[in-house]
Amino acid sequence: MKLLEDRILQDARVLPGGVLMVGSFLNQQIDPALLREMGREVARLFADCGVNKILTVEASGIALACAAAMELGVPMVFAKKHKTSNVDGSVYSTPVHSFTHGNDYDMVVSREYLRSDDRVLLVDDFLASGNALFGLIRLVEQAGATLCGASCAIEKRFQGGGDQLRAMGVRVESLAIVERMTDTELFFG
Amino acid sequence: MKLLEDRILQDARVLPGGVLMVGSFLNQQIDPALLREMGREVARLFADCGVNKILTVEASGIALACAAAMELGVPMVFAKKHKTSNVDGSVYSTPVHSFTHGNDYDMVVSREYLRSDDRVLLVDDFLASGNALFGLIRLVEQAGATLCGASCAIEKRFQGGGDQLRAMGVRVESLAIVERMTDTELFFG
Repeated sequence: MKLLEDRILQDARVLPGGVLMVGSFLNQQIDPALLREMGREVARLFADCGVNKILTVEASGIALACAAAMELGVPMVFAKKHKTSNVDGSVYSTPVHSFTHGNDYDMVVSREYLRSDDRVLLVDDFLASGNALFGLIRLVEQAGATLCGASCAIEKRFQGGGDQLRAMGVRVESLAIVERMTDTELFFG
Repeated sequence: MKLLEDRILQDARVLPGGVLMVGSFLNQQIDPALLREMGREVARLFADCGVNKILTVEASGIALACAAAMELGVPMVFAKKHKTSNVDGSVYSTPVHSFTHGNDYDMVVSREYLRSDDRVLLVDDFLASGNALFGLIRLVEQAGATLCGASCAIEKRFQGGGDQLRAMGVRVESLAIVERMTDTELFFG
């Protein structure tokens, strides 16, 4: 998606160690015009798949998931990183390791909001090692729901998660794919 | 906002102790049509205030904040509940007690995304004791920014936070105001 690639080239910061900072427009401060266009693009890519639910995980996936849900006209559900007092009733749950935060957490979603007749599209901001998406896929499997695919704003392809998912047969559509990064520059696929 | 009140009457669950569960349409699973209308209503209420930024706190405030930001055409920033490795640079920070989760956390936002010339509208899903909004107001003050007001989907007025904010001179616009709750019923204002 050229609009997103151009914005990354203009405003992202590249730091040593493959770190890509996009807080100014994507995941701390969110540009609403870009968000709307990204939501449209996700909806366009998965328009013919019979998606009836979008699933993401808190917190930085929620914005794109909402934008895509509004375009597709389907509910959005977000998994939580811990079971809290305001998660309804019984849950599906799976352990996930976060490389970004260097910790492990239990990804949790209420059983009530993920059902066996759901056709689920996963949405997130970043796809790197893929751990968050693998966790969401396990929740979809626990529910016996159908996985239509996954869409992320930015895939860091050199970290392998996206291609692992594709090798498993998951349709992965990333709006911008970073093929490689040096300490100061990035290169799209 | 009648649309939201009707939906609450139809789908919310009331539990003893003033607990209102709206996970099926507002804060675990989100109805995109309702979300869009709520975003429009927030934008309409604050259309003439020169708002140039919406500020919320992760995670359940993000959806409504995004919808309002897309309607107003201004950036949305969300504060985090902990400083993590992907928060840029130096931050504004304030301690907050969460009654919902029974814990204390540091509410954090990057200084880069909250500036002294910002005119800020606060958005959140629930307003009860007001602790999350008081925290966001302290962040706005730390930045030297201007507070235009606060808008929440559901205010539990009997918990006092909204009226405390109004008494401080903050313009508070709640899309649905619950005046009182019994163990099984709720009553709007």
